[in-house]
Amino acid sequence: MAHRVGTIPPVGSNDERSAIQFTFETLAVIGLGAIGGSVAWRARTAGVPRVVGFTPDPGDAGAALRAGAVTALAPTAEAAAGAADLVLLAVPPRATLLLIDRLAPSLRAGALLSDVASVKGAVVARACGAGLASSFAGAHPLAGTHGSGFGHAAPDLLRGCVVYICPTGAAGDDAARRVAGFWTTVMEATPVHVDAVEHDRQLAWTSHLPQAVAYALARALAERGHPPSAFGTGARDTTRLAASNPELWIEIFLQNRRAVLDALDDADARMRQLRDLVEQGDEGRLREFLAPAAVFRRSLDP
Amino acid sequence: MAHRVGTIPPVGSNDERSAIQFTFETLAVIGLGAIGGSVAWRARTAGVPRVVGFTPDPGDAGAALRAGAVTALAPTAEAAAGAADLVLLAVPPRATLLLIDRLAPSLRAGALLSDVASVKGAVVARACGAGLASSFAGAHPLAGTHGSGFGHAAPDLLRGCVVYICPTGAAGDDAARRVAGFWTTVMEATPVHVDAVEHDRQLAWTSHLPQAVAYALARALAERGHPPSAFGTGARDTTRLAASNPELWIEIFLQNRRAVLDALDDADARMRQLRDLVEQGDEGRLREFLAPAAVFRRSLDP
Repeated sequence: MAHRVGTIPPVGSNDERSAIQFTFETLAVIGLGAIGGSVAWRARTAGVPRVVGFTPDPGDAGAALRAGAVTALAPTAEAAAGAADLVLLAVPPRATLLLIDRLAPSLRAGALLSDVASVKGAVVARACGAGLASSFAGAHPLAGTHGSGFGHAAPDLLRGCVVYICPTGAAGDDAARRVAGFWTTVMEATPVHVDAVEHDRQLAWTSHLPQAVAYALARALAERGHPPSAFGTGARDTTRLAASNPELWIEIFLQNRRAVLDALDDADARMRQLRDLVEQGDEGRLREFLAPAAVFRRSLDP
Repeated sequence: MAHRVGTIPPVGSNDERSAIQFTFETLAVIGLGAIGGSVAWRARTAGVPRVVGFTPDPGDAGAALRAGAVTALAPTAEAAAGAADLVLLAVPPRATLLLIDRLAPSLRAGALLSDVASVKGAVVARACGAGLASSFAGAHPLAGTHGSGFGHAAPDLLRGCVVYICPTGAAGDDAARRVAGFWTTVMEATPVHVDAVEHDRQLAWTSHLPQAVAYALARALAERGHPPSAFGTGARDTTRLAASNPELWIEIFLQNRRAVLDALDDADARMRQLRDLVEQGDEGRLREFLAPAAVFRRSLDP
């Protein structure tokens, strides 16, 4: 594995927290949906003094303010960004790229920019292109929900998750360390430092492929017209991801296209192999196919 | 839909229960794994006076007796069957077929035989072949667990589930009504009467296909060597079914081979279609593909 586990371990005590020299007085969160809303809310709960939010969605904005997930709403993304030590983009992948360009001139000296998008190669490249090599680090929390909007946010949604931290390169090591520090101290997360391209290759398998498979399976089932009562917990779990927002996933699939295609081709070959074994009725080879799958899946459970 | 919803509705009051004329004094459960153990346990909890169990697995037998899921253990399947008003086979599909032949001579006059296998066409045909057309009805509770053995049984595992009831034909209508009555009054389940062949065609899509897809996906992921920490809740849910016992599913896939192949071919075509849309980067057609999948999946949630 190409992972380098973050050198900043999850910490809890005040003594340990004070060892992180960069303190966040003001956090700006752009996008107050399920992920951005949850980060903002958790930051408030953990004692970050000011959390400024911006979203073009009036419903999310009002709900976040009422819930106390933000201390203030900014009128524009630029205004939010200009007020903060750490600016977090919590918007879909394409908007993330656009906002990196747009907000770069608004960042205060010494401020950090980060994001939470599921695809990191294009994001990191765009940050470098915008002159943010030393003040940007990508982040991708490996947690979430198939729900969209602040209505699906919760202070603990991302708490304690694994979060991938993708530096811009050698120039961005300090920024990556500081962004990891935010996730460690505020979100109680476990940072894993990983190269952005390697991240995307891995996530194509561990996240984007299950998502695509769930969509394909749900699409096949949708055509059959069986009533909801016909589906047990197995079919529901296997297709749960298909309830996610298609717009978000179109962007993820296309930003990570090559790696997603590799994973889809492999999974499709496995499915045709299983299909052929069922047709042939070859129990021995069916066993050889299914047993490693069962061993693997059981290994994911504690 | 070809479903005929059971005419015996889920009932709760004693008055309604007394309307079911057939009462079960002694239930025999052959196989005390997750499903058989849960049925036995629930029957005891619901007040069935005697629940006689048989399993060749000493661990399951001891655990079921200690938990109070059975009132007695029988030394053989025949002895268990000969003691009961209702004999329930809770064993894998192939063993179900063998036991129908083996136990037919042991049944008492007026006793009923039933099963819980996920494939019903072969089971119902075998019961007719064994001369049990008027004393057999197949049952398939649409609930369960990917775990195996009595350690995964629970009194409420199947409580309140949908249960498919498959009659042997016109001669078996009374048996089907009485088996449905057991599920309604004792298990608080909702019986759905359906022809066995139609059942198998439907389950190929609603259950066996998600199972096969989960196995294929898990097999693809197993080969990549990512550590458990690399998988979030999405990948875990999508592959959960792959933790199931391969031996059980080999039998299910092969007993329902033709219908499972049809479903797998369709799902595979969807996956290749999705793959091609990602390759082409056609956002409009990706949207047309994904949106109905999301609508379908969201319709399964309350």
